[in-house]
Amino acid sequence: MPYPETTTGFAIKDTKNWSSFTKQELPLKKFEDHDIDIAVSACGVCGSDVHTITGGWGEIPLPLCVGHEIVGTAIRVGPKVKNIKVGDRVGVGAQIHACLECDICKADQENYCPHQVDTYGAEYPDGTVSQGGYSSHVRAHEYFTFKIPEGLSDEVAAPMLCAGITTYSPLVRLGCGPGKKVAVVGLGGLGHFAVMFAAALGAEVTCISHSPDKKEDALKLGASHFVSSKDKNWDEGLKYKFDFILNAADVLLDFDLTQYFGILKINGTFHNVGMPDHSIELKLQDFASTGCYIGTSHIGNRPEMEAMLKLAADKKLHTWYETIDVSADGCKEAVERVKNNDRVRYRFTLTGFDKEFGKRT
Amino acid sequence: MPYPETTTGFAIKDTKNWSSFTKQELPLKKFEDHDIDIAVSACGVCGSDVHTITGGWGEIPLPLCVGHEIVGTAIRVGPKVKNIKVGDRVGVGAQIHACLECDICKADQENYCPHQVDTYGAEYPDGTVSQGGYSSHVRAHEYFTFKIPEGLSDEVAAPMLCAGITTYSPLVRLGCGPGKKVAVVGLGGLGHFAVMFAAALGAEVTCISHSPDKKEDALKLGASHFVSSKDKNWDEGLKYKFDFILNAADVLLDFDLTQYFGILKINGTFHNVGMPDHSIELKLQDFASTGCYIGTSHIGNRPEMEAMLKLAADKKLHTWYETIDVSADGCKEAVERVKNNDRVRYRFTLTGFDKEFGKRT
Repeated sequence: MPYPETTTGFAIKDTKNWSSFTKQELPLKKFEDHDIDIAVSACGVCGSDVHTITGGWGEIPLPLCVGHEIVGTAIRVGPKVKNIKVGDRVGVGAQIHACLECDICKADQENYCPHQVDTYGAEYPDGTVSQGGYSSHVRAHEYFTFKIPEGLSDEVAAPMLCAGITTYSPLVRLGCGPGKKVAVVGLGGLGHFAVMFAAALGAEVTCISHSPDKKEDALKLGASHFVSSKDKNWDEGLKYKFDFILNAADVLLDFDLTQYFGILKINGTFHNVGMPDHSIELKLQDFASTGCYIGTSHIGNRPEMEAMLKLAADKKLHTWYETIDVSADGCKEAVERVKNNDRVRYRFTLTGFDKEFGKRT
Repeated sequence: MPYPETTTGFAIKDTKNWSSFTKQELPLKKFEDHDIDIAVSACGVCGSDVHTITGGWGEIPLPLCVGHEIVGTAIRVGPKVKNIKVGDRVGVGAQIHACLECDICKADQENYCPHQVDTYGAEYPDGTVSQGGYSSHVRAHEYFTFKIPEGLSDEVAAPMLCAGITTYSPLVRLGCGPGKKVAVVGLGGLGHFAVMFAAALGAEVTCISHSPDKKEDALKLGASHFVSSKDKNWDEGLKYKFDFILNAADVLLDFDLTQYFGILKINGTFHNVGMPDHSIELKLQDFASTGCYIGTSHIGNRPEMEAMLKLAADKKLHTWYETIDVSADGCKEAVERVKNNDRVRYRFTLTGFDKEFGKRT
């Protein structure tokens, strides 16, 4: 049963062989009135994909096809879909469904809806497991489907749909803008967007990275300052400086958090967008030097996604990416290099979908 | 060498014998132009005193006299003191000095000044160790000395100077007021102030306590609702409800923090005012259900202290307290009962200073 019953995806069969991808048919949820079918043309490779397929975030349904930074063409549109028509170039991020009826959804917080469905590995109300974009097709609710502005290519847009929004949303919610001093910790897939967007929003950005060789990139992306956290006393001279820190590093284990808390303004925020597998140990006293807060967020809402895409198109902000052809080998290479942090500067986008899956209309 | 060279205080000599108090002379810092000498007439007994003398917060200088909820009479006033004159009834909280010159101090954040001096157990720039209010006299900088409004007795005012301000400051900084839903966790010395002040500031207050028998007290203090956290599913029906939580409990070890994070509005705050000795272990994923934050604060600033005392006087908000006479036995009883959480409802105030130390003028 090929499409429209199924999507053809590169799936893993167990978390021990997390980089062995098998091309196979995977069921799609029943097509409903608000749904849109998308022929995938590009899919970003996200750290979440790796956390998921390695089992780092817990058990997962198998087989599973990951990928939640999806760009493609709308090839079928439900009768109640309002803003998307067949042929539109559209994108889907890490969330594909929500109830849209609860107080959370009504408050434009659908990314926290208790009935939300992740783009892959989550159960729809009907029991179907969602499957991601390392595949020929995805079926998405219109509310989680976004028109891609003309100025952004498939390859540029795809990684913005998870990594981009994951940094953009907390930046704007934390008040990023002119007059604000923002530190971005970690220059990787998330961090390079954080630097780019924070600077574009008008803040004075300091990039803090343990890789001194990334200084030039940070400045090109819009940072005004670069600090190497390899220097033991890197925080000297930064005390009480930042309105908030956006931590885009995916590890916290080696961090002396009191150093980070100490460079915040009073009552500032250490906001994490990475989600390491591991726990952290904290004492409340650690926060006392600046009366600060630590927390995290989950992607962003629809208005923020639209605003981010518009900002990127208007200001010609482009993802720094490398393309890899979609295939069992390509997927393997991509997730292994992300896992090993092997020359990822700063995002992989899977492409070549027509070559692999044929033209899909 | 009695006063003015020394204060006569009840001090402990080692943290193993943390409830054995010895009456002895303790050096006072050199009297300077902005200093005020206070003949103590009441001193609250704070959880911090117990954390300190037991060594729970780390090593301490010995001998040490604790107590940082001090009310008394100004008996000597430095030549540059502006707002206090001899004979005034005044109070001192947990902070007794700061540089008042740095950017932090200039931004009314002197309670985070890197040069701050705690009321006891801290070194002044000249090397003298500060000594607290379980004693005949304290010597305080005028900026950390507050006129006590007429409507507040010594016994009522004293505990407000640390426990009160420690809850009042974060309440106002987190926007407590009409239309806000605030949860206060833990009904003890801190919590009873938090409920009282949050209600007086106009918020709808829910008190969450593991002691169901405290319900009546919570409602009398101003809470609109009471929830017993002894019920395993106590958070049912509270999901996404609170703008912020003020956690006044002094332990976090037994908490399932995901339950607390889940009752916050999106991007809400779990603010801690207790400072347990122990660490907590967290995963960033724990925060993801509501995109929330955890943090803490350190007492409050001068404007907040003045506003709190005015609010308490205007609205006739009174500490719930029990008095214990100051003496070696009285101090012992007070700290042991605080340590064991033995019928503390909700604050002890040491009194009888004239009886113990004589009239001091």
